Amino acid sequence: MNAEIIAVGTELLMGQIANTNAQYLSARLADLGINVYFHSVVGDNPGRLRACLKQALERSDIVITTGGLGPTKDDLTKETIAGALGLPLVLHQESLDYIRDFFERLSRRMCENNVKQAYLPAGCMVIPNRNGTAPGCIIEREKKTVVMLPGPPKELIPMFEDMVFPYFEGKTHQIIGSRMLKVFGIGESEMETRIMDLVERQSNPTIAPYADMGEISLRVTARGHDRDEIESLIAPVVEKIRERLHPHVYSDAGETMEEVVLKLLAERGWMLSTAESCTGGMLASRLISIPGASRVFDRGFVTYSNESKIQELGVNRETLDTCGAVSRETAEEMAKGLAERTRTTAALAITGIAGPDGGTPEKPVGLVYVAAFLNRRMESLKLNLRGDRQRIRSVSCLHALDLLRKMLFGMV
Amino acid sequence: MNAEIIAVGTELLMGQIANTNAQYLSARLADLGINVYFHSVVGDNPGRLRACLKQALERSDIVITTGGLGPTKDDLTKETIAGALGLPLVLHQESLDYIRDFFERLSRRMCENNVKQAYLPAGCMVIPNRNGTAPGCIIEREKKTVVMLPGPPKELIPMFEDMVFPYFEGKTHQIIGSRMLKVFGIGESEMETRIMDLVERQSNPTIAPYADMGEISLRVTARGHDRDEIESLIAPVVEKIRERLHPHVYSDAGETMEEVVLKLLAERGWMLSTAESCTGGMLASRLISIPGASRVFDRGFVTYSNESKIQELGVNRETLDTCGAVSRETAEEMAKGLAERTRTTAALAITGIAGPDGGTPEKPVGLVYVAAFLNRRMESLKLNLRGDRQRIRSVSCLHALDLLRKMLFGMV
Repeated sequence: MNAEIIAVGTELLMGQIANTNAQYLSARLADLGINVYFHSVVGDNPGRLRACLKQALERSDIVITTGGLGPTKDDLTKETIAGALGLPLVLHQESLDYIRDFFERLSRRMCENNVKQAYLPAGCMVIPNRNGTAPGCIIEREKKTVVMLPGPPKELIPMFEDMVFPYFEGKTHQIIGSRMLKVFGIGESEMETRIMDLVERQSNPTIAPYADMGEISLRVTARGHDRDEIESLIAPVVEKIRERLHPHVYSDAGETMEEVVLKLLAERGWMLSTAESCTGGMLASRLISIPGASRVFDRGFVTYSNESKIQELGVNRETLDTCGAVSRETAEEMAKGLAERTRTTAALAITGIAGPDGGTPEKPVGLVYVAAFLNRRMESLKLNLRGDRQRIRSVSCLHALDLLRKMLFGMV
Repeated sequence: MNAEIIAVGTELLMGQIANTNAQYLSARLADLGINVYFHSVVGDNPGRLRACLKQALERSDIVITTGGLGPTKDDLTKETIAGALGLPLVLHQESLDYIRDFFERLSRRMCENNVKQAYLPAGCMVIPNRNGTAPGCIIEREKKTVVMLPGPPKELIPMFEDMVFPYFEGKTHQIIGSRMLKVFGIGESEMETRIMDLVERQSNPTIAPYADMGEISLRVTARGHDRDEIESLIAPVVEKIRERLHPHVYSDAGETMEEVVLKLLAERGWMLSTAESCTGGMLASRLISIPGASRVFDRGFVTYSNESKIQELGVNRETLDTCGAVSRETAEEMAKGLAERTRTTAALAITGIAGPDGGTPEKPVGLVYVAAFLNRRMESLKLNLRGDRQRIRSVSCLHALDLLRKMLFGMV
């Protein structure tokens, strides 16, 4: 089966938003083994939309439209498609009741316009919308399937997951499951070399890598008749990848590095503190972005100036003078001083040159030292990172956390 | 004139990346007054690409393709389009020399495959690529214009800005200029009410609002024959918007709030420190994301636990016991203690409940206090923010910076 996605909306053609719905739907259709051959974007214009739809129905088995289901006169996806398929729009009482309720819960008055949203093509399967007023629908017609979904991702995604994905699983007589492996500390090409044969040999499960900001995600997706069969297909492949990439796989459940490290510390009842120079609070901020971080994260220092490294962390002035603020010695003194002052079991320190300025031939932009002090044991790393200021800072945070993770597992 | 954008790339159809190039190009074409009626995405497949191109040439004046200009056999945009237009591909010596140089500079060997990238459709205008090996090109043919650009945004964007944008300015016999106003502290609908008549009355300049994470950007774009004419059209509109939205416009040059506040402090030679609870380093991290922040930013504390607020900032235990960690009293004591301990002229403190847990009926999720202590003067704000954990943290940072900005301007 092949599919195409038609997004309807002038805001896409004006460049106000990116078509992230097409990205999301394509990834999920790939999971289902459905090939997507085309994306189109067209404005809120009946003539152009009708032409797009006609072409799509000629060349694709499945057509998914997004957007144009709102209450205004400009929203005409449903009217145009029902017209093109020769289907009348009929009132769907349940949807109307739901829309009325929706406004009542928000203590807002329903406009008469919203009634239009409860009219749906005759004979369609209605897709309820938990997060908005526009229901979607699935229409089957002459071996073709047309799915209409609203534009806002927070409405579209749950509707797709709740009804459209299971609908296509039913069509393909199989269900889909996947596990996400998270990999850090190994380059993309090195990783490919190590697991290439697995990627090429496998068709069920499939292995899809995706690299971003120094991390690699590997999605292992299998099809089967039930969850047990899927798990029995996925588990041995995950095991093999873990072995081949050891010690770089830090999660096989799609967690972030922050989540993994916080969980490991929480299990032991240990507290963590941070001292940051070039990352400037990014490490603390990423840890605190995880709900419940307060059980593990005690406090953090952003010691950007030399004076603050001395005053807050007890770094020796002599170390700063002789080795410099960006040195292994300073990083280690930051971590040790931090642990002593905060009495936390784990202390992480980062100092480096994030650029774009401040680099020298001896200490170029991208030179970063991270130090981890855990249970009175010190480990530190010298990094030579590439990329812009944000990337250098972001990858430095990952290295610091990964060093602590490896110490917790006794890998270093 | 109307245009359409064809993106070529299986990675788009697999959902690995979003089509941000189409968004970028659409926004810039809108600036030029060129209407974009369609986006398409098609895989690396000559048959389907040829059909897409044929259709595009029938219905649009301008066709811009992105992607498929790489060195591999899969990259066949150029071959397919040249074939469809009946143009032979000829060697462009300058491009070949450039590609050779490019590899030499990186100390890497050029593959024979890369030679293919220097072959371009006969009679085209070549668009050099400063950041990669794939040159682009502009082809004029029977009143139609076809532009081919490579897929990576860091290559495409400079190529479009350097050559394609000026090319279309020449075609339309006018040039374009714009100014970006940044607005904070006012809701979208309130802003619309205040400037709606300006937005509706204007066609040159146009005013385009865009809202994200509590901020609104207003792009004022004018067309004219030269820079002076454009500036004379834009300046009075910017002035009127500033008046209507006072004191909420914090930049008319597209700066971030962090940049504005750091600049104001740098001009006065004043240093800034931060103390954060729920934002957990995000404020410090955003300040330090600006190159050169070290001239102004001294240090920051992430005082997540009560003990750390007492030990690092000198907050009274009694205040925490009676008023709670999330209170105006605690926020102000954090800011004052911070300023005293760091001897900085400006000190910002944030404490609040970012959720999803930790809220109570008296102190719900989204309750945040920010305090600014500047030259021994205290101002603080109570905020009731909506949204998820990240949004609450992010908007809290903006409120803290905005409070300091208003104090620096004597607006509060």
